Amino acid sequence: MDEETIPPDHPRYWSLVIRERLVRGFRNGIVVPQGLIAHGRGEAFDYILGEETHPPAREATKAAAALLLVSQNPVISVNGNSAALAASELVKLSQISNAKLEVNLFHRSREREERILSRLREEGADNILGVGEDADAIIPDISSMRRKVSSRGIYRADTVLVAIEDGDRTESLVKMGKKVIAIDINPFSRTARYATVTIVDNIIRAIPNLVKECEELRHLSLEEIRCIAERFDNEANLCNMVAIILRRLEKIAQQGF
Amino acid sequence: MDEETIPPDHPRYWSLVIRERLVRGFRNGIVVPQGLIAHGRGEAFDYILGEETHPPAREATKAAAALLLVSQNPVISVNGNSAALAASELVKLSQISNAKLEVNLFHRSREREERILSRLREEGADNILGVGEDADAIIPDISSMRRKVSSRGIYRADTVLVAIEDGDRTESLVKMGKKVIAIDINPFSRTARYATVTIVDNIIRAIPNLVKECEELRHLSLEEIRCIAERFDNEANLCNMVAIILRRLEKIAQQGF
Repeated sequence: MDEETIPPDHPRYWSLVIRERLVRGFRNGIVVPQGLIAHGRGEAFDYILGEETHPPAREATKAAAALLLVSQNPVISVNGNSAALAASELVKLSQISNAKLEVNLFHRSREREERILSRLREEGADNILGVGEDADAIIPDISSMRRKVSSRGIYRADTVLVAIEDGDRTESLVKMGKKVIAIDINPFSRTARYATVTIVDNIIRAIPNLVKECEELRHLSLEEIRCIAERFDNEANLCNMVAIILRRLEKIAQQGF
Repeated sequence: MDEETIPPDHPRYWSLVIRERLVRGFRNGIVVPQGLIAHGRGEAFDYILGEETHPPAREATKAAAALLLVSQNPVISVNGNSAALAASELVKLSQISNAKLEVNLFHRSREREERILSRLREEGADNILGVGEDADAIIPDISSMRRKVSSRGIYRADTVLVAIEDGDRTESLVKMGKKVIAIDINPFSRTARYATVTIVDNIIRAIPNLVKECEELRHLSLEEIRCIAERFDNEANLCNMVAIILRRLEKIAQQGF
């Protein structure tokens, strides 16, 4: 079934459209089967969130945009799922925030790296790190292929944006003294807890929102932007998101019965 | 990693076995990429449930077994994921409950139908409906390919067991006057709410449990079995499962922060 053949009257139309986008990425060799299963886990949490961006996520998105703008060497880490779902918006975010794009994969193969590189180039990106020999440095304490990073990119970055991530790498990046912005729809995950700023939202909404926030923040002084980044409290924000999830589940349960 | 090489004492043994079974089904053309995503959704809910069968699910399983046994024309609807995950147990359930097996797919193709047919035959099933020309009837008000059913099977059934389903069809089947047994790990879903008996559990645990319940119930009189089926309250049961989920999430949140 193609995006065009999904019955428009299906109650979960939009979710199915996103799913088809991911399946297309899978057929193009950008997404691995494990990425499809991981996406499904995300879908479940998005379903619980009502497939919308909640106020704490908006606040975290603003803080994340501010953090990107005040960083010296911000890097956006791109994997198969994020390239399949939001390539165009990731390139826009990179351009507006002066953050580099770096390909970083759990299931790494040269072919997949190249396909993701091409996908990002199609959207107008020019300098993409982490592909092939460029992944010349190692993040300590990670056993997966995610440890391979570019010495010009994630290795020396002061801030790294990660999406749809495993908890190990976020912890290691923070241990290396970096700030980590995580887009993770599961507020209970280790990634969500370890990150400096966690945006509990679907990447498909979070990346465009980040672009918008960057556009708006650029009208402020550097000092004002820094203030927004620094006064953000990730633990409190996650608590608020968990409270929203519990309230939503209670409400769904009450309305339904 | 093959199913046989997963150490049985691994803390996430079942979850790994299930994933390997699904990936094998995917490689054999039984499971579609969309099925891997759907499985991920299920994984998230099973994670929240602690990957175990809770008391309300056991109660629902018993009621479902009773309903199958007292039905005149029960039919078990089989899709790609359920065939990949529980083919052998579905055939056993069909045999012990005298329910017909019918292939019914959202992403329908003759090749997939035939592969699922072969998979069920391998496990000893002989009369499998819904394949090719046999899907000669239409359930009203469904726009997806799931509307195509056998006039000898789902179309004239008094009870239909569905697993890993979309809500539309469950609602339509109930509107047609049928009783629906749903195996759905998400108690908030439309399928869960519309069904006559909803088993909020992973299919990999639910189908063997249904077989066991059928074996035990057969020692009772038909009147006693009917009584078990009739006194089941699906709404109350779903409320109990929702309460369990909320308590579990509160606990996960407290432990983490």
